[in-house]
Amino acid sequence: MLSIAGQCVALCCVVSLLWIVIGYSLAFTGGNDYVGGLELLLLANLDLEGVQQTFPGPLFVVFQLGFAVVSSSLITGAVADRMRFSSVLCFVAIWSVIVYAPVVHWIWGGGFLRQEGVLDYAGGTIVHINAGIAGLVACLVVGKRRGYGTQNMAPHNPLFSVIGVSLLWIGWFGFSAGSALSAGKSAAVVMLVTQSAAASGGVAWMLFEWWALRKPSVLGLVSGVVAGLVAVTPAAGYVSPGGAIVIGVVAGVCCCWACAWMKYKLGYDDALDVFGIHGVGGFVGALLTGVLALQSVGGASGAIEGNFYQIWVQLEGVVAVAAWSGIASLVILFAMKPFMTLRVSEDEEVEGLDSSQHGEAVGREP
Amino acid sequence: MLSIAGQCVALCCVVSLLWIVIGYSLAFTGGNDYVGGLELLLLANLDLEGVQQTFPGPLFVVFQLGFAVVSSSLITGAVADRMRFSSVLCFVAIWSVIVYAPVVHWIWGGGFLRQEGVLDYAGGTIVHINAGIAGLVACLVVGKRRGYGTQNMAPHNPLFSVIGVSLLWIGWFGFSAGSALSAGKSAAVVMLVTQSAAASGGVAWMLFEWWALRKPSVLGLVSGVVAGLVAVTPAAGYVSPGGAIVIGVVAGVCCCWACAWMKYKLGYDDALDVFGIHGVGGFVGALLTGVLALQSVGGASGAIEGNFYQIWVQLEGVVAVAAWSGIASLVILFAMKPFMTLRVSEDEEVEGLDSSQHGEAVGREP
Amino acid sequence: MLSIAGQCVALCCVVSLLWIVIGYSLAFTGGNDYVGGLELLLLANLDLEGVQQTFPGPLFVVFQLGFAVVSSSLITGAVADRMRFSSVLCFVAIWSVIVYAPVVHWIWGGGFLRQEGVLDYAGGTIVHINAGIAGLVACLVVGKRRGYGTQNMAPHNPLFSVIGVSLLWIGWFGFSAGSALSAGKSAAVVMLVTQSAAASGGVAWMLFEWWALRKPSVLGLVSGVVAGLVAVTPAAGYVSPGGAIVIGVVAGVCCCWACAWMKYKLGYDDALDVFGIHGVGGFVGALLTGVLALQSVGGASGAIEGNFYQIWVQLEGVVAVAAWSGIASLVILFAMKPFMTLRVSEDEEVEGLDSSQHGEAVGREP
Repeated sequence: MLSIAGQCVALCCVVSLLWIVIGYSLAFTGGNDYVGGLELLLLANLDLEGVQQTFPGPLFVVFQLGFAVVSSSLITGAVADRMRFSSVLCFVAIWSVIVYAPVVHWIWGGGFLRQEGVLDYAGGTIVHINAGIAGLVACLVVGKRRGYGTQNMAPHNPLFSVIGVSLLWIGWFGFSAGSALSAGKSAAVVMLVTQSAAASGGVAWMLFEWWALRKPSVLGLVSGVVAGLVAVTPAAGYVSPGGAIVIGVVAGVCCCWACAWMKYKLGYDDALDVFGIHGVGGFVGALLTGVLALQSVGGASGAIEGNFYQIWVQLEGVVAVAAWSGIASLVILFAMKPFMTLRVSEDEEVEGLDSSQHGEAVGREP
Repeated sequence: MLSIAGQCVALCCVVSLLWIVIGYSLAFTGGNDYVGGLELLLLANLDLEGVQQTFPGPLFVVFQLGFAVVSSSLITGAVADRMRFSSVLCFVAIWSVIVYAPVVHWIWGGGFLRQEGVLDYAGGTIVHINAGIAGLVACLVVGKRRGYGTQNMAPHNPLFSVIGVSLLWIGWFGFSAGSALSAGKSAAVVMLVTQSAAASGGVAWMLFEWWALRKPSVLGLVSGVVAGLVAVTPAAGYVSPGGAIVIGVVAGVCCCWACAWMKYKLGYDDALDVFGIHGVGGFVGALLTGVLALQSVGGASGAIEGNFYQIWVQLEGVVAVAAWSGIASLVILFAMKPFMTLRVSEDEEVEGLDSSQHGEAVGREP
Repeated sequence: MLSIAGQCVALCCVVSLLWIVIGYSLAFTGGNDYVGGLELLLLANLDLEGVQQTFPGPLFVVFQLGFAVVSSSLITGAVADRMRFSSVLCFVAIWSVIVYAPVVHWIWGGGFLRQEGVLDYAGGTIVHINAGIAGLVACLVVGKRRGYGTQNMAPHNPLFSVIGVSLLWIGWFGFSAGSALSAGKSAAVVMLVTQSAAASGGVAWMLFEWWALRKPSVLGLVSGVVAGLVAVTPAAGYVSPGGAIVIGVVAGVCCCWACAWMKYKLGYDDALDVFGIHGVGGFVGALLTGVLALQSVGGASGAIEGNFYQIWVQLEGVVAVAAWSGIASLVILFAMKPFMTLRVSEDEEVEGLDSSQHGEAVGREP
């Protein structure tokens, strides 16, 4: 528990610095169709005047930094409780520069996927599919936790999950509505659409689990909320509240199925269901954006207005990002292996990472 | 603990959907003096241009959705630890459409109480009295927890209460100041007034408990803060900081008395003191708004400026809402009884709702 | 744990009231060079039109109230687990009026330090040095906790520290960026600068601890983030992101050294390292502001642009505030001694303050 929190905070620090030093430049300067240039190294020459007239440049850097930090933190959830602290830091730091920043350039930075017409309003493909695939690759390379499949691995305290998701829910409005880059009508539509999908995702997962497993778990409920939030991310500025409810329901059911059946069928150990929720939810959302986008909402149009080609474009975006994230993550991990041990030793794993990696404990008696 | 959190999240989802589908329409379209119409079912035809020129329409929906969710969540606190998860969901979902939405229409939607001149700036009567009475009725119908009055029922962990109230305190500024519907002078006054009442409510409850019970409990302190926040809600845009301090002090003392003496005298089991804090605090605030409103602050005037009639109007609002909420809640609960069991079985209650309703546990050893 | 939270909430209430009643007036009305006047007692005659045209007056009161509350809460951390609840309330309440409000007047209120040219963008000297010194004095006067130096005094649950710092981190943006008193370019620069220092502070502390003690603790990591946030506070509107990274690194290393070595060498018992992080971090930040301020960022210039005199001015500000806070705190504490016992009895300390002061317990079995 503590080691996961520590990884998130440490990555928040490290990725923030890397983003300021080089990531932002690779993502948002001209460069070519696949990666940006180095003109804004260390943010020298940053234009204070801003993006789109309404958003000061430094604020856009901080806003984008938030996405980079979230993407990086997601990966750690997949390899929780067995990957070494130093290896996680090292892997994700490299990933944020080599994999994440170029992908941002492909879509938001005006690269080849943007030119193809890929829609990703607030990071469904860029953040969630990208991180979900990287997490899946990492958890396959690192291997399962000891006792996985035989011991009870239920979360330490679901209450922290509820608190965490509640804060996430509120924060999500910032990311989604902030993507409108100004406080006004479109930001308001995005908030309404986001809330619709989150609510229907939570209800769908709960009802599906209730029907299939007889009891609606609170963890499932909050997972469904996250699934809805993830899936509506790429669509937020392009669909109606009704469309968002459809996205939420499909995502809630698909992600529940992925986490409760597919994962065990395929036998990988994705500790916090990063792939099952963010990867699968991102995939559902990216495709449904191609179906449900409306010209009257965001100027984009999808299959329900007769533009079937948009589904194909969305699929192309998903495949390109997933392939790049998967292959590059694999290469980074294997390139690290000669230099550092990825996984903690068996003794350290039994001892627990809180103690073996950080010398600390949760809930120690005073 | 977990079951309460789960109920709140589930209701947040369900009530959000109902609000988007039908609640908003019942509250904010023309209709008659008692309930709105169905023109905005599923928010079709929602005016994007906004309310009062400064507030986009969809944002107003999300903002009002927040009030609906908070009201619904409050009710669950009164019946915690013995009402079945499905019954809570069902009761509160119906309540949010049949009871809550019309009451919003009565005051904020231009209905008969608005026409009478009832003042309710940010939901004192609409949210707190309304939910407080519904919670009281539900906890009377469902009955006391096993062991109530003989066993120690102190909160599982007051620290979570402190964290919860701290977040609530910050969120409250959003609801209160947001009710100004624009960022500016009036929102700023509302923030100052809200902080004044919260602080004086906390201090008043603490001192009263210190004097009466010899020790100032931390739970009492944060309860006093909530009592102050509740009581200033109807008054926030109409009183001075000095008036807010008076409201906070009266609410802190009255709510402390209600929770520590009245509840035991009357013998009902309101687990989280929803009626004692929100009902009583709302009542105190609604009446004192009629006393302390100042023309120089919000354009309204009360008894201290000679308009004694306003106290009478406020009382009328309180009685109308309390009567409707109480009677309708009773009818809903009795109408549900033939179809579903309201209360968990004795075995399930002893086992605990976290496990019996959700198959989960808090703080389970890893 | 609970008693600390209770002290913070109680002080938040008490200091809010005092700030509204008299503190704001002492800080922000004309008066003389050392203390303001009494024209705004109880905020009568408060100008609603605002400060600097963009910030309504009441919002500025609430904003400044936030600084007063934070400063007061910090002090409690130093004397945790042995000072009586009533004594803490009494000491800090007096301190907030007699020590804190005048210091605000000295710098932000146009007093003698402002006239000297002292730079303190968002409260490094006013909040952090001021409270850090008061905390140090209080913990010296009250004495060490029983068993300090022989028993393990590691935090009850580092996870709460992580959650707390995460919320603090987000809240800090409000205080720092809010100090620009309008949403725009300068607020955006401040956010970027704040994030840079927080991230580099966390990384620096982590690496230093990793190198010196072999394991990077999560508590150290989040302490480093706070150290970076503290140290950049006085500089936020005057330095570049590169300058902020320098400040964060220096603060992370210095504060780590202060908390892990200096404290034990000098033998004082600062329970939550208020002096080690806020005092030392504030000192580092105040001086480096004099070195790294750039005219191109905030209109001020420092040593790297040839204005070496600014370092001297900053030092003058630090010494004046530290001396006043230290001496006045000492006088207040000794003046209180004849009237009330500062410290809990030995029995009460062994029993724990949660129970002896508030009659409550954390994590009591239900």
